[in-house]
Amino acid sequence: MPHRRIIIDTDPGIDDAVAILLALGSPELEVAGLVAVAGNLGIAPVLRNAGAVTELAGRGDIPVYAGCPRPIGPLQPDAAAAHGEEGLGNLVLPPPAVAPRSQHGVAFLIETLRDAEPHSLTLCALGPLTNIATALVMGPDITRGVAELVIMGGGSHGNVTPAAEFNIHADPQAARVVFDSLLPITLVPLDVTEQVRSTAERIAMVRAAGTRCAEAVAELLSPQRPAAPGQPGRPAMAMHDPCVIAYLLAPGLFSGRRARVAIETASPLTLGMTVIDRRSPSPPPPHALVLETVDVDGVYRLLAERMARLP
Amino acid sequence: MPHRRIIIDTDPGIDDAVAILLALGSPELEVAGLVAVAGNLGIAPVLRNAGAVTELAGRGDIPVYAGCPRPIGPLQPDAAAAHGEEGLGNLVLPPPAVAPRSQHGVAFLIETLRDAEPHSLTLCALGPLTNIATALVMGPDITRGVAELVIMGGGSHGNVTPAAEFNIHADPQAARVVFDSLLPITLVPLDVTEQVRSTAERIAMVRAAGTRCAEAVAELLSPQRPAAPGQPGRPAMAMHDPCVIAYLLAPGLFSGRRARVAIETASPLTLGMTVIDRRSPSPPPPHALVLETVDVDGVYRLLAERMARLP
Amino acid sequence: MPHRRIIIDTDPGIDDAVAILLALGSPELEVAGLVAVAGNLGIAPVLRNAGAVTELAGRGDIPVYAGCPRPIGPLQPDAAAAHGEEGLGNLVLPPPAVAPRSQHGVAFLIETLRDAEPHSLTLCALGPLTNIATALVMGPDITRGVAELVIMGGGSHGNVTPAAEFNIHADPQAARVVFDSLLPITLVPLDVTEQVRSTAERIAMVRAAGTRCAEAVAELLSPQRPAAPGQPGRPAMAMHDPCVIAYLLAPGLFSGRRARVAIETASPLTLGMTVIDRRSPSPPPPHALVLETVDVDGVYRLLAERMARLP
Amino acid sequence: MPHRRIIIDTDPGIDDAVAILLALGSPELEVAGLVAVAGNLGIAPVLRNAGAVTELAGRGDIPVYAGCPRPIGPLQPDAAAAHGEEGLGNLVLPPPAVAPRSQHGVAFLIETLRDAEPHSLTLCALGPLTNIATALVMGPDITRGVAELVIMGGGSHGNVTPAAEFNIHADPQAARVVFDSLLPITLVPLDVTEQVRSTAERIAMVRAAGTRCAEAVAELLSPQRPAAPGQPGRPAMAMHDPCVIAYLLAPGLFSGRRARVAIETASPLTLGMTVIDRRSPSPPPPHALVLETVDVDGVYRLLAERMARLP
Repeated sequence: MPHRRIIIDTDPGIDDAVAILLALGSPELEVAGLVAVAGNLGIAPVLRNAGAVTELAGRGDIPVYAGCPRPIGPLQPDAAAAHGEEGLGNLVLPPPAVAPRSQHGVAFLIETLRDAEPHSLTLCALGPLTNIATALVMGPDITRGVAELVIMGGGSHGNVTPAAEFNIHADPQAARVVFDSLLPITLVPLDVTEQVRSTAERIAMVRAAGTRCAEAVAELLSPQRPAAPGQPGRPAMAMHDPCVIAYLLAPGLFSGRRARVAIETASPLTLGMTVIDRRSPSPPPPHALVLETVDVDGVYRLLAERMARLP
Repeated sequence: MPHRRIIIDTDPGIDDAVAILLALGSPELEVAGLVAVAGNLGIAPVLRNAGAVTELAGRGDIPVYAGCPRPIGPLQPDAAAAHGEEGLGNLVLPPPAVAPRSQHGVAFLIETLRDAEPHSLTLCALGPLTNIATALVMGPDITRGVAELVIMGGGSHGNVTPAAEFNIHADPQAARVVFDSLLPITLVPLDVTEQVRSTAERIAMVRAAGTRCAEAVAELLSPQRPAAPGQPGRPAMAMHDPCVIAYLLAPGLFSGRRARVAIETASPLTLGMTVIDRRSPSPPPPHALVLETVDVDGVYRLLAERMARLP
Repeated sequence: MPHRRIIIDTDPGIDDAVAILLALGSPELEVAGLVAVAGNLGIAPVLRNAGAVTELAGRGDIPVYAGCPRPIGPLQPDAAAAHGEEGLGNLVLPPPAVAPRSQHGVAFLIETLRDAEPHSLTLCALGPLTNIATALVMGPDITRGVAELVIMGGGSHGNVTPAAEFNIHADPQAARVVFDSLLPITLVPLDVTEQVRSTAERIAMVRAAGTRCAEAVAELLSPQRPAAPGQPGRPAMAMHDPCVIAYLLAPGLFSGRRARVAIETASPLTLGMTVIDRRSPSPPPPHALVLETVDVDGVYRLLAERMARLP
Repeated sequence: MPHRRIIIDTDPGIDDAVAILLALGSPELEVAGLVAVAGNLGIAPVLRNAGAVTELAGRGDIPVYAGCPRPIGPLQPDAAAAHGEEGLGNLVLPPPAVAPRSQHGVAFLIETLRDAEPHSLTLCALGPLTNIATALVMGPDITRGVAELVIMGGGSHGNVTPAAEFNIHADPQAARVVFDSLLPITLVPLDVTEQVRSTAERIAMVRAAGTRCAEAVAELLSPQRPAAPGQPGRPAMAMHDPCVIAYLLAPGLFSGRRARVAIETASPLTLGMTVIDRRSPSPPPPHALVLETVDVDGVYRLLAERMARLP
């Protein structure tokens, strides 16, 4: 399996946290940095969670950057209801010991991509695309450094609206900038990620890896306990974001097709929709790989295996 | 199987012609009238074809009306390329002997629905929804007479654009009027109709019914011969519209789910999309039955059987 | 001054009523019929008011038709707050003695325009353009009979929203059909009509005409008395609709320029805006005459003079 | 007249160049920096022109920054046809001796505004709002440092489309970010700037100031000579951007009103329109001062006077 140098752009978030840990437990991946972006929650909690999760994995050496605290487009509702007020569901972590870097996350993206060998860095986008779009507006030449941009987002249907998925809907204007660029995009849509659901057996398999990170992931995979006695809990969420990392590690667990993808930014009804041209032949040249199938058990086996390698 | 009194609103069109013949060969259905609408081709050829097909079936007694010659929304491209310049592909029919009625098709719809018993008339919409929408704007009370409105249109993906199907895209403004009304709608989308494709065996089965109508339908189901020597032919088209009639005759050949359906009218990118809320639970009360599966061989067997009953 | 045969499409409405009376008091105008349309209020009160006003003028012989009870586009708020619950402000009229015709107003428009000499009938549109648009969708050939379509609507700014005027905003989809047709349009926009405001002197001048119609118009021009003791009254409204009739009678009271006019139907922010191309030269050939100035005192003098001719 | 510290965000451009020289000739204004933005032409020529103009004024000490080379929204046509291929019409300047700073213009905006006293810096936006919007997305807290944002843009009508002015149309998404922020905005629209036109007398008055900068401005104000023999010249352009600086220097030359301003980003027809709520009272609290009148001769006298102070 080829070595990849990656940057994770993320708004942790329960499934973001699992994705980050999956990356940190994988020797094939060299994480050049984490960039936080407002999305599931505001920038402050997601920045804290990004740091806390890297330190849980014993990787306080990985730099964490604060990106954009707001979308390019109008502010949309966050997902605190789904991820819990702290953003990590059942998992409670101490605040990070290492402060985030002072450089703006967008500046880090631009500088790192300009300094990189051509087509050498893989961007993993686990949240709204605000940071990446802003970097593209400020410095369109950064595309040269990108090997691949793998995005969790969109789908042939929506979750926050009938037509739109959360990450794209949270900043459709940013998504349009990204999908209109010449970046080589792999899209990991809801059609795939909603299948990746944690059963008791799958959670037990991960927990059996026996490390503190395995235990933490097991908590993240589990149904959320009530915030207070007498309140209802929440079902476990689908493991959307870990699919991005799993695809990098084991592309054979997925299949997909090449297609044109455009982003709806004009209409309230379909705002934030990823319009995937499934016609065959797709008239303009397809520019994205859209994943369609996933080996769900394979993803969970990979997760369990990699958690065993972490502290 | 219950008796149904129906009006067919149609723009024949190859698959419209098959649908009309399927209805005329079915004793359970009483066809109160055919209303032509511009769509696949302009109003003149589709009006002529509606008359010619009823007369082929020996049913020149069924009144044929000219409806709207243009959409409510801006004019969109027609489908003459898919249906042939005359609109019936390989099938050449003599011009109808009986003239269409002088009453406007929209006036016929309003008058017939107002005179009908409550919830007694089933509308079959095989083309753009211009006539039905115009009737609803002029007389919203006509909904009382409708038992069911079965529409061929839309889908989770498009055929004329990445997001839109031909009938809805041809007049999205009309579709919005119809889907925003309180009519009980059954939607027969591309997801279903694109599966209904004619193989050599299926064509042979229909032809074997042995009547002139069976022979005509076999021609309609077949790949289109070149318009001129040296030109390419065209593959056979999917039998979209006959699914509407087949659903009335044998609903057990189909399955579906209730869902909210909204029509995109604002954005050029998604214009004419049927936005089907597939989230579960669908937040606002679902108002349409959206078909999802079809027994394709069952549809062809039904077609063959009914063609045997016609001249 | 040339004789004109006109149809008044209207939603009375205080200023509609004044416009109707101005037309009925003018021997140059032959009123072929009034067609009611839902707008300022629902179809029932505006239909009643249309009949009541014609009978006030002793013209119960003029046929009154019910047009569309709803817009083509989504329902927008009405203007009952501005016109009073009965729609005629201070003026209380007995219900009409003559019933409206049974023919639908849209059918009347189509039939009358088809029967008319080419370019012989002037349409006066004082409300939303639903009826005229529906007639154009059902029978685009009716444009041949039209001499001129004079529309009260639109402007370089709005009154119900920052960008949209009431009549166009009430049915932007209908307005788009009308402005995209080849009809010769004269637009009487807010820029003109908001100047036509009733002072005590102008009201007194009309009242001095001494007829019952003059007295009724004086009431229509006056500030509205409170609906109940202790409630606030309302200021007098601008005389928007009478400008349409005044323009027919005395075009010299107005000046304007030719321009392209397009209707915004897509965006919530600018929905119903008349986008007037004021660039010089306006790139595509201008198709509408957009009025820009008005001799306000001239309009009121005309009104007073014509009210003297009525009962 | 109060001292102001300003940053000029600009895409020179003929009228931008005049505006920059007007600022540099005015002791009341301390120019903290110039930030170039793609607009009238691409980033390379406008960056060069920004430097060349400051050096013409003997102010090579003022830092010049490269901002965004592309808009946030989709790329729109540039204005090279209006400004000439080099961007300064008749004026030919040597390339700047001093290189632009290496810091990105957006980073300069953020850093300078964060370091500034509260409400102490005035931003002058003479081009598309891409840089300012990007800074607001990356660091919304920068609004604290802004005393006023004065924007040349928009109007009650358009110049590049019937509804949109060039600067706003060039990046409507950016304009929306800016107008939806809480910044104190003064808008200098086409309604004002199109009046500021150079006559032979006005040009002569400026030239009479006798300096090389006066001579340069006289060239910028003059009709453009043909690019090649036999080709047509171009009429002189209106002095849009200098109105921004003139307003800072002599607000008494202008009058305006407070109003809500929203930016149209959804519809192709009205894309980039500044929707100014001119209704009275404007329902939501007005947040911008929209200039409406200008003393044109006063602006030219100011320009002539200040050019006399420059080399």
